[in-house]
Amino acid sequence: MFRTRVHNLNISVDGYAAGEHVTFDAPIGGADRLFSGFDGRFIHGVDHVDAPITVDRALTTLWSQGVGAEIMGRRKFGPQEGEWPEDGWRGWWGDEPPFQTPVFVMTHHPRPPIEFANGTSFHFVDAPPREVLRQAQQAANGLDVRLGGGPSTVRQFLEADLVDFMHLVVVPVTLGRGVSLWEGLSDVGDRFTVETVTSASGLTHQLWNKKNRRG
Amino acid sequence: MFRTRVHNLNISVDGYAAGEHVTFDAPIGGADRLFSGFDGRFIHGVDHVDAPITVDRALTTLWSQGVGAEIMGRRKFGPQEGEWPEDGWRGWWGDEPPFQTPVFVMTHHPRPPIEFANGTSFHFVDAPPREVLRQAQQAANGLDVRLGGGPSTVRQFLEADLVDFMHLVVVPVTLGRGVSLWEGLSDVGDRFTVETVTSASGLTHQLWNKKNRRG
Repeated sequence: MFRTRVHNLNISVDGYAAGEHVTFDAPIGGADRLFSGFDGRFIHGVDHVDAPITVDRALTTLWSQGVGAEIMGRRKFGPQEGEWPEDGWRGWWGDEPPFQTPVFVMTHHPRPPIEFANGTSFHFVDAPPREVLRQAQQAANGLDVRLGGGPSTVRQFLEADLVDFMHLVVVPVTLGRGVSLWEGLSDVGDRFTVETVTSASGLTHQLWNKKNRRG
Repeated sequence: MFRTRVHNLNISVDGYAAGEHVTFDAPIGGADRLFSGFDGRFIHGVDHVDAPITVDRALTTLWSQGVGAEIMGRRKFGPQEGEWPEDGWRGWWGDEPPFQTPVFVMTHHPRPPIEFANGTSFHFVDAPPREVLRQAQQAANGLDVRLGGGPSTVRQFLEADLVDFMHLVVVPVTLGRGVSLWEGLSDVGDRFTVETVTSASGLTHQLWNKKNRRG
């Protein structure tokens, strides 16, 4: 059965998952401290990195397991606003975006897709969450769909009850301000079973599984 | 850099990782309670199972990540002793052994290899740990070698200082007797950094990483 999954969503102890203003110089809006301990080399598996295999890193590898498409908000693709300028922008990731699947970018300004040699392609879709998810599911070829963020995009899908799994990581820093994942979602916990473990690094990992699924 | 890894090695709170007498009816020597909570469906990744993604299951998936060969003791392959009888035995796993790589079975009684359509092949080797590891590493084609147990086989490799990583799982049961992983290995902990977390199911996971490796 198909799942919509959120992975490696880092949140400060005061509840923020991104900074307020994304610019070319500040891809996560100045909230860099949320990711200072994040070792992204592990998203494709522990065998891709010669480093100790820790709980943090084992959980990070879930990101790539059985995912056939990603959905992301426009800000995760780039800092531009309004109509897309002719600036040659192809995302933050250079010639090797880590996704290696179709990626659906939610935007009110559709444009032609962008394709990379490593299997990543970006498709720009102006549609509500349920319709974007339908397209992503179709592209995922029987695998799961990853909901890649940012936090306001995840919140939209939570509001529509379209999220089956979340791996949240509470990072022991405070940001004081930023984008909250939880804004206006006071009852969302009722729909999930949450398991929490704290790793040796001081990160707290939460695995949120939707209730009432098979297993 | 190449690693020799142990995964999902379950141990009772009194230190036993297998029962004493392996028979056709008792593959782990009557120590079945060690595995009563083990969901082996996850060894190939969380996407292969429609069930909640828990800490136990996330750590279980490390089993298959980047492994190109396995080494196992003879008892893990079958209960026979001495010369191999002409009994048509092809292991405990039917037509689809989960390994899907070359497997090196340590035995004092070599015999021709056994091959399966799913990529698993069993090779029977009469050699000390370092030489078996050399053969497995060559077969692994640049990937890691999994040391598949049982506990006395893992202990031989620990004694020879040939283990780089172990995922041990302490299960809250007592067995009273059986095969201990630790017998005679009082100083082995000095060579590793150990991270421990306890999951919601009551299992305690220990990740042992060899000190003084790069990363």
